[in-house]
Amino acid sequence: MDKLNLDSHISGQFNTELDNVRSRVLNMGGLVEKQLADLIKAIKNHDGELAEKIIENDKLINELDMQIDEECIQIIAKRQPAASDLRLIMVVLKTIADLERMGDSVASIARAINDKMESRYDSLVDSMESMAKQVQQMLHDVLDAFARMDTEAALAVHKTDKHVDRKFESAFRQMTTYMIEDPRSIPVVLAVMQGIRSLERIGDRCQNISEYIIYFVKGKDVRHMNPKELAKTVKG
Amino acid sequence: MDKLNLDSHISGQFNTELDNVRSRVLNMGGLVEKQLADLIKAIKNHDGELAEKIIENDKLINELDMQIDEECIQIIAKRQPAASDLRLIMVVLKTIADLERMGDSVASIARAINDKMESRYDSLVDSMESMAKQVQQMLHDVLDAFARMDTEAALAVHKTDKHVDRKFESAFRQMTTYMIEDPRSIPVVLAVMQGIRSLERIGDRCQNISEYIIYFVKGKDVRHMNPKELAKTVKG
Repeated sequence: MDKLNLDSHISGQFNTELDNVRSRVLNMGGLVEKQLADLIKAIKNHDGELAEKIIENDKLINELDMQIDEECIQIIAKRQPAASDLRLIMVVLKTIADLERMGDSVASIARAINDKMESRYDSLVDSMESMAKQVQQMLHDVLDAFARMDTEAALAVHKTDKHVDRKFESAFRQMTTYMIEDPRSIPVVLAVMQGIRSLERIGDRCQNISEYIIYFVKGKDVRHMNPKELAKTVKG
Repeated sequence: MDKLNLDSHISGQFNTELDNVRSRVLNMGGLVEKQLADLIKAIKNHDGELAEKIIENDKLINELDMQIDEECIQIIAKRQPAASDLRLIMVVLKTIADLERMGDSVASIARAINDKMESRYDSLVDSMESMAKQVQQMLHDVLDAFARMDTEAALAVHKTDKHVDRKFESAFRQMTTYMIEDPRSIPVVLAVMQGIRSLERIGDRCQNISEYIIYFVKGKDVRHMNPKELAKTVKG
């Protein structure tokens, strides 16, 4: 075997490792999506048992985070990747950190709503459910963009976040009014408020992942850019 | 110059780069500390101008985060570090991500409290101030542990977080009661509550950094460990 063949062989193995780590990120993301879907069901059906299961399942996500993190470091140490390969690994590391925190948020909402929800709070729960569905879609779309490293799709997700923010603000106002009108509801409404705040933060994290995708493809750190600059970087 | 000399020369430059990046993390941490100190002053003196300055200064922290992030990637690409050097760079990357988010939290508290604070809410503001001082100490101590990569000091910070959690819970209960007794206070108390929640999260992030320090020294990912396992890893 001459040197060229050996090189391409090694690089073939390396590509397999990178593909493998990317698909593990998508698996991890799929788990978070599933948790979010279960959360919506648990909220809707006042299902305490399902809420318990969500809390338990969060451990699997933490486990995956630590495993993929370790794999990435092994790859860097062994393969000494340069340029775009290294950027991919950095993006994987940042993405799994955000996915892990999303998992924590879902579990903490499950913890907070568990057995506090009586049916008289259905209107609040509807607001939360509708926000949860919105961020579920965002997460789905950003994972899809990640799978294809599609900057246009990532930019579309990035723009969606302002709708989540708007829904959060309107739900927050609705809940403040609810508390003022019925002070006995305060402890429950505070739990629901914390829930929608966590959902809003999941939206922010989807936005983070869309920024990592753009960074990977364009080689430019786009965090803290204003929307105009961001769009220009994607189109340019 | 023979090979050995050349190697030690290169490695000398490399060490300088690593030292440099470490001290930049400490500078960034010092800026976040300063922001927190200013926040405490702004809260205490109802100083809207200082709150504005805090919001503005957050941009410097974001800027540093992006710069150090880029430097780390350059070092990996150029130096292809292995084992403990690579671990150090990973720890730097994670630490600056947490510092950046702490900066965001401080700025968002400054935004929320700005011009909402009348003196009749002084008892709530006292609770917030006392929590802010507690996390300021935690941040100071964890940066100190980082400077010396001292696992015992990191473990001590890690343990402190439960005091912050307890103070948060007690302040949260106090504020809930306040709202129930005086529903007109609800919008302001919600802002203060969000403030103490952000402070509690800064405590969590100090705890994260203490885990990175232990990871660096012990080569073991200690996130999600229970306190007993963690103490054993540090002592072992």
